[in-house]
Amino acid sequence: MNELALRRLFDQVRQGKLSPDEAVGKLRHLPFEDLGFANVDHHRALRAGFPEVVFGPGKTPAQVAAIFTRLARHEKNVLVTRASEEQFKAVRKKVRGVQYRALARAITLQRDRARRGKGIIAVVSAGTSDIPAAEEAVVTAELMGNEVEHLYDVGVAGIHRLLHHRERLQRARVLIVCAGMEGALPSVVGGLVGVPVIAVPTSVGYGAAMGGIAALLGMMNSCASNVSVVNIDNGFGAGFVASLINRL
Amino acid sequence: MNELALRRLFDQVRQGKLSPDEAVGKLRHLPFEDLGFANVDHHRALRAGFPEVVFGPGKTPAQVAAIFTRLARHEKNVLVTRASEEQFKAVRKKVRGVQYRALARAITLQRDRARRGKGIIAVVSAGTSDIPAAEEAVVTAELMGNEVEHLYDVGVAGIHRLLHHRERLQRARVLIVCAGMEGALPSVVGGLVGVPVIAVPTSVGYGAAMGGIAALLGMMNSCASNVSVVNIDNGFGAGFVASLINRL
Amino acid sequence: MNELALRRLFDQVRQGKLSPDEAVGKLRHLPFEDLGFANVDHHRALRAGFPEVVFGPGKTPAQVAAIFTRLARHEKNVLVTRASEEQFKAVRKKVRGVQYRALARAITLQRDRARRGKGIIAVVSAGTSDIPAAEEAVVTAELMGNEVEHLYDVGVAGIHRLLHHRERLQRARVLIVCAGMEGALPSVVGGLVGVPVIAVPTSVGYGAAMGGIAALLGMMNSCASNVSVVNIDNGFGAGFVASLINRL
Amino acid sequence: MNELALRRLFDQVRQGKLSPDEAVGKLRHLPFEDLGFANVDHHRALRAGFPEVVFGPGKTPAQVAAIFTRLARHEKNVLVTRASEEQFKAVRKKVRGVQYRALARAITLQRDRARRGKGIIAVVSAGTSDIPAAEEAVVTAELMGNEVEHLYDVGVAGIHRLLHHRERLQRARVLIVCAGMEGALPSVVGGLVGVPVIAVPTSVGYGAAMGGIAALLGMMNSCASNVSVVNIDNGFGAGFVASLINRL
Amino acid sequence: MNELALRRLFDQVRQGKLSPDEAVGKLRHLPFEDLGFANVDHHRALRAGFPEVVFGPGKTPAQVAAIFTRLARHEKNVLVTRASEEQFKAVRKKVRGVQYRALARAITLQRDRARRGKGIIAVVSAGTSDIPAAEEAVVTAELMGNEVEHLYDVGVAGIHRLLHHRERLQRARVLIVCAGMEGALPSVVGGLVGVPVIAVPTSVGYGAAMGGIAALLGMMNSCASNVSVVNIDNGFGAGFVASLINRL
Amino acid sequence: MNELALRRLFDQVRQGKLSPDEAVGKLRHLPFEDLGFANVDHHRALRAGFPEVVFGPGKTPAQVAAIFTRLARHEKNVLVTRASEEQFKAVRKKVRGVQYRALARAITLQRDRARRGKGIIAVVSAGTSDIPAAEEAVVTAELMGNEVEHLYDVGVAGIHRLLHHRERLQRARVLIVCAGMEGALPSVVGGLVGVPVIAVPTSVGYGAAMGGIAALLGMMNSCASNVSVVNIDNGFGAGFVASLINRL
Amino acid sequence: MNELALRRLFDQVRQGKLSPDEAVGKLRHLPFEDLGFANVDHHRALRAGFPEVVFGPGKTPAQVAAIFTRLARHEKNVLVTRASEEQFKAVRKKVRGVQYRALARAITLQRDRARRGKGIIAVVSAGTSDIPAAEEAVVTAELMGNEVEHLYDVGVAGIHRLLHHRERLQRARVLIVCAGMEGALPSVVGGLVGVPVIAVPTSVGYGAAMGGIAALLGMMNSCASNVSVVNIDNGFGAGFVASLINRL
Amino acid sequence: MNELALRRLFDQVRQGKLSPDEAVGKLRHLPFEDLGFANVDHHRALRAGFPEVVFGPGKTPAQVAAIFTRLARHEKNVLVTRASEEQFKAVRKKVRGVQYRALARAITLQRDRARRGKGIIAVVSAGTSDIPAAEEAVVTAELMGNEVEHLYDVGVAGIHRLLHHRERLQRARVLIVCAGMEGALPSVVGGLVGVPVIAVPTSVGYGAAMGGIAALLGMMNSCASNVSVVNIDNGFGAGFVASLINRL
Repeated sequence: MNELALRRLFDQVRQGKLSPDEAVGKLRHLPFEDLGFANVDHHRALRAGFPEVVFGPGKTPAQVAAIFTRLARHEKNVLVTRASEEQFKAVRKKVRGVQYRALARAITLQRDRARRGKGIIAVVSAGTSDIPAAEEAVVTAELMGNEVEHLYDVGVAGIHRLLHHRERLQRARVLIVCAGMEGALPSVVGGLVGVPVIAVPTSVGYGAAMGGIAALLGMMNSCASNVSVVNIDNGFGAGFVASLINRL
Repeated sequence: MNELALRRLFDQVRQGKLSPDEAVGKLRHLPFEDLGFANVDHHRALRAGFPEVVFGPGKTPAQVAAIFTRLARHEKNVLVTRASEEQFKAVRKKVRGVQYRALARAITLQRDRARRGKGIIAVVSAGTSDIPAAEEAVVTAELMGNEVEHLYDVGVAGIHRLLHHRERLQRARVLIVCAGMEGALPSVVGGLVGVPVIAVPTSVGYGAAMGGIAALLGMMNSCASNVSVVNIDNGFGAGFVASLINRL
Repeated sequence: MNELALRRLFDQVRQGKLSPDEAVGKLRHLPFEDLGFANVDHHRALRAGFPEVVFGPGKTPAQVAAIFTRLARHEKNVLVTRASEEQFKAVRKKVRGVQYRALARAITLQRDRARRGKGIIAVVSAGTSDIPAAEEAVVTAELMGNEVEHLYDVGVAGIHRLLHHRERLQRARVLIVCAGMEGALPSVVGGLVGVPVIAVPTSVGYGAAMGGIAALLGMMNSCASNVSVVNIDNGFGAGFVASLINRL
Repeated sequence: MNELALRRLFDQVRQGKLSPDEAVGKLRHLPFEDLGFANVDHHRALRAGFPEVVFGPGKTPAQVAAIFTRLARHEKNVLVTRASEEQFKAVRKKVRGVQYRALARAITLQRDRARRGKGIIAVVSAGTSDIPAAEEAVVTAELMGNEVEHLYDVGVAGIHRLLHHRERLQRARVLIVCAGMEGALPSVVGGLVGVPVIAVPTSVGYGAAMGGIAALLGMMNSCASNVSVVNIDNGFGAGFVASLINRL
Repeated sequence: MNELALRRLFDQVRQGKLSPDEAVGKLRHLPFEDLGFANVDHHRALRAGFPEVVFGPGKTPAQVAAIFTRLARHEKNVLVTRASEEQFKAVRKKVRGVQYRALARAITLQRDRARRGKGIIAVVSAGTSDIPAAEEAVVTAELMGNEVEHLYDVGVAGIHRLLHHRERLQRARVLIVCAGMEGALPSVVGGLVGVPVIAVPTSVGYGAAMGGIAALLGMMNSCASNVSVVNIDNGFGAGFVASLINRL
Repeated sequence: MNELALRRLFDQVRQGKLSPDEAVGKLRHLPFEDLGFANVDHHRALRAGFPEVVFGPGKTPAQVAAIFTRLARHEKNVLVTRASEEQFKAVRKKVRGVQYRALARAITLQRDRARRGKGIIAVVSAGTSDIPAAEEAVVTAELMGNEVEHLYDVGVAGIHRLLHHRERLQRARVLIVCAGMEGALPSVVGGLVGVPVIAVPTSVGYGAAMGGIAALLGMMNSCASNVSVVNIDNGFGAGFVASLINRL
Repeated sequence: MNELALRRLFDQVRQGKLSPDEAVGKLRHLPFEDLGFANVDHHRALRAGFPEVVFGPGKTPAQVAAIFTRLARHEKNVLVTRASEEQFKAVRKKVRGVQYRALARAITLQRDRARRGKGIIAVVSAGTSDIPAAEEAVVTAELMGNEVEHLYDVGVAGIHRLLHHRERLQRARVLIVCAGMEGALPSVVGGLVGVPVIAVPTSVGYGAAMGGIAALLGMMNSCASNVSVVNIDNGFGAGFVASLINRL
Repeated sequence: MNELALRRLFDQVRQGKLSPDEAVGKLRHLPFEDLGFANVDHHRALRAGFPEVVFGPGKTPAQVAAIFTRLARHEKNVLVTRASEEQFKAVRKKVRGVQYRALARAITLQRDRARRGKGIIAVVSAGTSDIPAAEEAVVTAELMGNEVEHLYDVGVAGIHRLLHHRERLQRARVLIVCAGMEGALPSVVGGLVGVPVIAVPTSVGYGAAMGGIAALLGMMNSCASNVSVVNIDNGFGAGFVASLINRL
């Protein structure tokens, strides 16, 4: 039935009843393939202009490899987040050209390397322990066609380190700022630039850090008005939002 | 001393030693006037390209009027958020051309009406009780030079209402979605569009809504990757971030 | 003494002093066997019309097998929830006809397969990670004599997937909706149907998901009035409540 | 346009192209009237078979009267929850036949008194302070065409009071149980009956009751499997869910 | 110096300057031996009339054995709570007559078996999973010279089980009630008896049980006025308080 | 029917078929009068040996007076907690001999002044702001026939004040300790005495005191094993439990 | 009796049996006057070298005046924190020389103006709304004999404002930093100086600020190691600790 | 470029254009070496007068050894906190003179042993389980040139143990007090001394201790005004702050 719908759509385009733009618009809400335990949505890439993304934890290496293989048939770019090396090894046996980005804990397949972002995305981290979230943002943004710069270990207790790089920060078209503990860095960075800042609270810290809740609350209350926030350790989400902004 | 710095700066520009762009860059971090109880920063408008903003609660009508008057000397556009009618009446006596936007609880002065945003900002609210936060976002975005559309009372329990307006949603360049209670609307809207969505949890609800914390947590965990979040009831912040994005 | 009570009861029935209905009513509150470490209540099945249920975690395989064996003497249907494969293997050695439903992590014995539910129970899940809770609900409802349909991976960020199946949803007499993260799915489903919806928050997610608390709060605040909620990951409870409703 | 759609629908029915059932099905997702600040959905009654409901708090008496008047043109039954006497007085001036149920804090208009529920709905409360939530459930269920019985002040610390009424509890087809403080009553009631129990945590208590959160958590963890839960003080939601169940 | 103080004390008693009672009173606040990493207080037994208690977790088997050995020189009764079997094996090699109470996870040495409690202490548990906390209370109370009865698996969802034993409950001079999940049992038991009830929330449950916090909050809000509460899983504390009460 | 039951009971006693003790035992679970909005349980006094208690907040002066009048017909001692002066004035018009204990915010009627407690109950408070909770405990214990001593403003930051009164503390048979802020006083007092300590967290403090939650958590974690805890500001509960203990 | 003790002490000093230093040492733990509802401790000033402090809220103007009058007889300096103007007016009628510091909401009596602090205490605030807490710290420190400098409205979103005053910050011997919202300022200030920083979270903010909890958590997790924290809005505590440090 | 800056600085000093003091002032905010994954800041020691500190958890032994080696080239004293024995063994192979302080879980290198603190720092712990945090404070303070005394296992439930050492407490110039569970010890100690007390909540306890949150909240609400607080288990932070104070 979905096939029928698709064929009808393309017939209409061929006959000039639909412009390609209209066809794309219709496709956005139409088909998805029923694969048993997960509705893999091949049109999501088309809809959002981005690759398919798989969340690694809780899946066996075999499951990740199976999903990845299927996706790699239709998608140019595929990303597995929070992936283990074991998952990577299972994927590598089935699909060519995949990479494991260890710091980001990500498996990537990037066959489309077109530049889609118009400016630079800067990814900033407060401490070295925040790097996994920051790198997840970097990998995501790169895979989505952006030029990415990073600036790590510039936490607010040594403010001169950050200010030293003020010009690099001001060159960026959108920034991602990752911080655990008190989560203060996005406010300071937000005050130095005139563009959107995506804040990523990280689970770095102990005791009253409460697994990132302290940083999350801090960022929600940022006194810099250009800051919006994603979930704790959600480097992927930050990279995704920043990529969307950078395409505009 | 600051005057000195400023004069030197303009001398350098006149002598061709500094381009205007460089001068603006330097100004960003230079002067601010010490006014006693608050460092009103006249360069903030220049720095961010936006008007000065005053947070109304806890200030007497007289205080608001005093601050507003001073700002109105240097700024074209001024905004007081969470303002009472009493505060408005005090301001109106001192400054011409101010308006009270009752739904948004905002006092506005808009003398610069240049269009700066490149597309439409759509502001969506789940219920009628979310309108104050939504209107604060609308007023903020309008004051910052954007075309704004709103779409209210389209909560997820009547999903057909929202889908009825799908095309309006998809026309927007950036969206602001306000919702209290379970805070589910940004996820649904986020799935319908391919652009950034700024989610505003509101304090609407009772009991387990916990003053907006339930909605905030829901939005932080949104299954739509294009969603980032600002503080509870922070329509201003959402309007500010959306305006920044829409200028890019 | 309990035997005495029972004998007296049946004598009374035989002599026409009690109708069978009255006898059942009396039985409901009467006997239970004292087995040492747990009062296994053989009349619970009779009282509620449902099988005996054992909660697996924290019990050794040998303990589960011992309890299961005892129950299987009196009960037609027995269910162990959150069971491990080791527990299943221990049971299988002692009791014939048991099954292990791996996705649901359940050991089942179903010797009574009478249809007791009057309509269809639909079990819906937002993502593939919510399937364990959903399958626990499915197994429970099946074991209690219901026709069950499931619909998985139809989260709110791809609302068209869900709407595609609107008619299947509307055929159900009662629905169970499982979702983690922001827990928004029950509100949307609730708005599409005119029958009761049992919401199951799941512990799926990370960071601000707080082990299912975010989803739980979201569901408690559902803007759809036909939604009630059970504990995090409590697929069994949802299946039980839905079965009760479907018998009415 | 909506009118057009409606006319077309009825034409199709007259011409036999659509059965009335099909027409109703289509109507469910079609029209709603855009009234400015709130999309009053006149088909909601038709869709769910229930009256329109207005949430009173935060609305001026004039606003409540305006919404109520409009709804009363199309609906037979209208309910305002958490209503003040002032709101009632404003409504009474505009609409005939309205009542103020003071204990329930509800304004009601009931012109359709058809019995739709098949059995009795029993509403149980732990203490006298829980009565407002309980009465809201009673009013809701009555307005939706149910026979309702109530049983108040039967908290668990005097268990004999509750057991005294065991037979009344067991006569009900569905039960609503309201309790604040430790929220234990639904578990005890749940164990006494073989039908669904809707638990309503109330904000009754002080200190560690935390405005109903303690009762809510208690009910989520109920050891009785036939219990599902709605929001704190949400008597309306409980009455609504119970009415849906009682119609089956 | 402490020796000096002690000698002087006994001299004074011998010379009749102090009565033995006065000497005991003085001893209460005087000496303790400085042992390096822990001030083992040999007078605590004398002061409180109870054995020395060691908290097992975080101590190596060797450390437990060392502390136990030292204590066993001065004390008649010694108790290690939350002890592992490994810790027990290490102690057994050094001290005669010790026992491991596996259900209670306790190592005990009981050389003084005098009956000190005046009545019966009843220990009640809601489910079988609450037994470890309950048994810890049993062991503590026994070691402190009480007659203890227990009554397990009488949770509130099967209230007849509990009522069946009403008379046993009413025979007790003080009761300890252990319950996880919603923590409702102490309220029901409290209503059935006219003596003090010590409630022990347990960490039994999952999801919204939050490791015992739900049960704790429930018990703090008990509608039975004769209930007081100790920490989550703190069977020892409950046994200790109950023993103090039972001696009065 | 209840009357019938009662008459039969007394007949049986007169005829010697029941001893008075047995009759009392039976009465405990039998009758209560159905008064409309509250089941006033006249046997509660008999059952627990204590007066009837009314919780003042949320009741109008007229309601309190009505309930009080009714209770005063059957009970010798009546207590209204958290009562306002207005409530007292309404009661005073209807019942003779009532008193208003302003510090405790309690209305009392004490016609039975028999001494039932065997020793002294000491009520200790950390600061002057904790006195309302402490006085509620004092009034409760006095009304229940105890000799009560109080010791106020002996917080732990001036430990010498407390130690100054060590002997008074050690004379008590049971102690009630009220403290807000960090809630440390019960641990210190608990270490000084060998009898049960009932801890009452109070809502005294600000900021991180969180309305008494900080003190509550502190007391739950007391390092003194003879401490059990009641709800925040629950002086009544503490007085009740202490009275039960002091009767043993 | 206390008088006796005091006289004996002074006799011993006069006779040379005690040095004045020893006498002071003894006095520290000796007498306090029992005044009925509060043990006013006249030796606290002597013990700590600081004035007596009264917490204003919850006390009537008459009560504050009574306590103040009594204290003013023995103390040179007296401070009432969180005082209302009404309380001040009542005090002013009874005691000469008192002042009302409106911004700090403090009543002060300062008859001893000796300089006791060795360096400067700098009090820094993030925003103008944090000034009440900051001023409470200023008043406290001044009353305790310190030179105090303040620097307000230098929040982290405009980091250049703060850096502009770096030298003033570095001149201080100890700093107090007050901030609400995300509470980030102490970390930045802490990184700029090499001396102790006392952080005061304030209740400034809304929504996820949760009355200062967000700022408190942020400060507990400060990445600057020279930061320690006092309670929310506790300017007094910060001023007290800073004064102690500055005396060293 | 940084080298250039440094050289210029020293040239200026040599030429008498800058005094050494001014040079140190400038250095404070100038250079840091970019080492790839972490900006190791060699000037931090100079700036703060303290050694470089590495946080052990989450780093491999090889990483710790690499960082340590690099630091040991420039720093005299180096500290790794929360270090494992494996990390120590890796460091020991590369750097001479390092020590492993097992109780404190710290690796130390101390080549500068100058006494910088002016008085004694006393470190007090409530129980033996609090010793790791206390020892971390001890090691930190020793490494920073202080004379340190410790006093362990003096919890508030045995107040005489603490009072026994009152004079030792009063000799200290600054105190660090570590306590888990109810966190009451700092208040008691704070009341006994007239100098600053740094409180360290520890994660000792179970159940309602919530990993140290209960102790943290208790300490934030301390009724002793000379107490300020650091993060849970943050012995290092407490040692650092105390060392700063002791240098003044």
